[in-house]
Amino acid sequence: MTADNEKKGASRRAFLKGAVAAGGAVAGAGMARAAGPDPLITEVQEWASGLGEGVDATPYGMPIRFEGDVIRRNVEWLTADTISSINFTPIHALDGTITPQGCAFERHHSGAIELKKDDYRLMINGLVDKPLVFTYEDLERFPRENHVYFCECAANTGMEWAGAQLNGAQFTHGMIHNMEYSGVSLRTLLTEAGLEAAGDLSDKWVYVEGADASSNGRSIPMDKALDDVLIAFKANGEALRKEHGYPVRLVVPGWEGNMWIKWLRRIEVTNQAVESREETSKYTDTLADGTSRKWTWVMDAKSVVTSPSPQSPIKHGPGPLVITGLAWSGHGAITRVDVSTDGGKNWQQARLAAEGQSKALSRFYLEIEWDGKEMLLQSRAHDETGYVQPTKNALRDVRGENSIYHNNCIQTWWVKENGEAENVEVS
Amino acid sequence: MTADNEKKGASRRAFLKGAVAAGGAVAGAGMARAAGPDPLITEVQEWASGLGEGVDATPYGMPIRFEGDVIRRNVEWLTADTISSINFTPIHALDGTITPQGCAFERHHSGAIELKKDDYRLMINGLVDKPLVFTYEDLERFPRENHVYFCECAANTGMEWAGAQLNGAQFTHGMIHNMEYSGVSLRTLLTEAGLEAAGDLSDKWVYVEGADASSNGRSIPMDKALDDVLIAFKANGEALRKEHGYPVRLVVPGWEGNMWIKWLRRIEVTNQAVESREETSKYTDTLADGTSRKWTWVMDAKSVVTSPSPQSPIKHGPGPLVITGLAWSGHGAITRVDVSTDGGKNWQQARLAAEGQSKALSRFYLEIEWDGKEMLLQSRAHDETGYVQPTKNALRDVRGENSIYHNNCIQTWWVKENGEAENVEVS
Repeated sequence: MTADNEKKGASRRAFLKGAVAAGGAVAGAGMARAAGPDPLITEVQEWASGLGEGVDATPYGMPIRFEGDVIRRNVEWLTADTISSINFTPIHALDGTITPQGCAFERHHSGAIELKKDDYRLMINGLVDKPLVFTYEDLERFPRENHVYFCECAANTGMEWAGAQLNGAQFTHGMIHNMEYSGVSLRTLLTEAGLEAAGDLSDKWVYVEGADASSNGRSIPMDKALDDVLIAFKANGEALRKEHGYPVRLVVPGWEGNMWIKWLRRIEVTNQAVESREETSKYTDTLADGTSRKWTWVMDAKSVVTSPSPQSPIKHGPGPLVITGLAWSGHGAITRVDVSTDGGKNWQQARLAAEGQSKALSRFYLEIEWDGKEMLLQSRAHDETGYVQPTKNALRDVRGENSIYHNNCIQTWWVKENGEAENVEVS
Repeated sequence: MTADNEKKGASRRAFLKGAVAAGGAVAGAGMARAAGPDPLITEVQEWASGLGEGVDATPYGMPIRFEGDVIRRNVEWLTADTISSINFTPIHALDGTITPQGCAFERHHSGAIELKKDDYRLMINGLVDKPLVFTYEDLERFPRENHVYFCECAANTGMEWAGAQLNGAQFTHGMIHNMEYSGVSLRTLLTEAGLEAAGDLSDKWVYVEGADASSNGRSIPMDKALDDVLIAFKANGEALRKEHGYPVRLVVPGWEGNMWIKWLRRIEVTNQAVESREETSKYTDTLADGTSRKWTWVMDAKSVVTSPSPQSPIKHGPGPLVITGLAWSGHGAITRVDVSTDGGKNWQQARLAAEGQSKALSRFYLEIEWDGKEMLLQSRAHDETGYVQPTKNALRDVRGENSIYHNNCIQTWWVKENGEAENVEVS
């Protein structure tokens, strides 16, 4: 149906300009075809000739069956067991910035537990004036905040250290989601417990742990704990899903997802980092010489083209093409994204759909006239600190190839003439 | 468990101040209790003693079973059939501003139809230079925008004209949702079809209709059509749900939901309003003298307290209480919300969780020390035009009581000493 509209070399922008300036004939120049005989247009369609489904059918709606492939996916060989594994966000199929909870990546260390609000308790203890235990209803009585933040696993894109591996943005970059959280500031609860007993706060920490068997404990410096950390109970307006830590999780804006403790049960004020398993043998970055970078909490600026990409090929011929993707930074707002179609030789500035928000996903678009030739598609994020997302090799020069975590390199998709795309590396 | 924490008269704010200033003893003054013997704390809990669910269990997640009451609800007696009816958003149970698609209100006129992307066509015809037909894939090739907008049915709160009726914010104010839309500007598509043929645009209209049997056609003045109307295909990042118009709906920011045509199939440029059923016998406001207000498209500034409310009673004794709700205006951003606990005699300024965004929901909070006495709880929205949400009686003075639509009056909940709430009117 669209074949005769895809005249090679016809530029939509040029067409628009011509139409506005001269009001001339425009047949066949755009992407749509002229209205005319089409069984879909001239006959009463099946869906317009009867009644649809009533409102009682959908007390809680699910995606339509035609979108059955827009789901989280795990990678069987990646972990020993699905109990301690990852389910990736289908970012290749999403647009905008909000991630619905239903398809937002999940990562657990001992499985997603089911914990009732009535059974829920949160203890604050350690170097506080008064150790306290909060019920869920107690938490609802403190002043609440709302913020949109991204949550990215430290291991997102981690397979890329060893070269182009998993084929698809969902798998290379899908350990990320972006939601509007409602909850209570951790600062509020720490103040409630009292921090006089802790003395000088500048060298104090909080140790946070979950109610699941792994407990997944992590140490957080007090200045971050008193800054923007949230005790969240809603995401995108509704209760956290079981797999996202129902009923309460920690939100640690801009910092690696492993610290966003789910099923949060305890916060201990300490005078040093606990150096738990999750921050020593795991979630530290092994360098080329075998030593490790310590305390690499912040997720550096990063971006990825989500479409076209291996799971979202170009399905049309040459002509107008929308390139789109996501960019984010744990250091603040995204200020600019560049896109290259030739593997980083030349760059064009993409359009941000909205002004960058601190520690939240930004959506970018670049509209091009695709000539039908192969492309080496890349994106490059800039954040408010002036930091620019590095190439994979620049990152390897500094960090070696032994790491799993904190790979924020520029990603390359080889888009072929037939519109299909592959994960590749450029030298 | 919380009983001994609820010492009447103990003010949490006073407590906080005391703790910071003097570092004194704080036992029992807060909402949480001192940490101590508690079976939940001193024993290994069931959920921490085994493994949870693996990631393969949830390719697309649903709310946890404990939240099974946070669903859309319809009101059987409200309409003759569920095919042409309403399913209300559970706003009493939500927080933040984003409405998940799964529980976002739905309203159809001939049922929710199932329309595949491959079968989808959008025609633009009438006074255009070149009538065009777009496939879904054609639409994806135009520049996209992202915006968060509220969609409110003109009949939201409509039952209140006749007095306090439905008991619960879900039913009085739940014909509203707020999502992040991704799509193409209608302006872009009209420009693609060319508007030279239409001549002077200032008196032209577009007539928009859906692919369902009702077609639900509406006329929109050209200046709105060229302003901020979107041809949307994603909501909150993912495809529109079937009941929200999959694969394409119209988004008409700030204007009544009936104009947000679902399963959008045709846009005709006309030299006058069509005066269809949906904009004459329906969706006009009958006044006291039997005449009608014509073309009442914009949804005026409005707000409602979502908690406490009839479906979200206070479950604790006197002391700190979070009052929260939603405010919105079709004329722009919310600039301020006031809350009254005495039926409108005295007002306190509530806290907006974020700066108001144009034509999108704002979340407000007011933290009070509840004395345990009954309250007549109200909220009052102000928008950027200076407009202030009116009382129910002020609205009736101007509009009579025969209308169904555009009731943006101040809502009153009678909160009793036991924490339960009822929908009432104050004189």
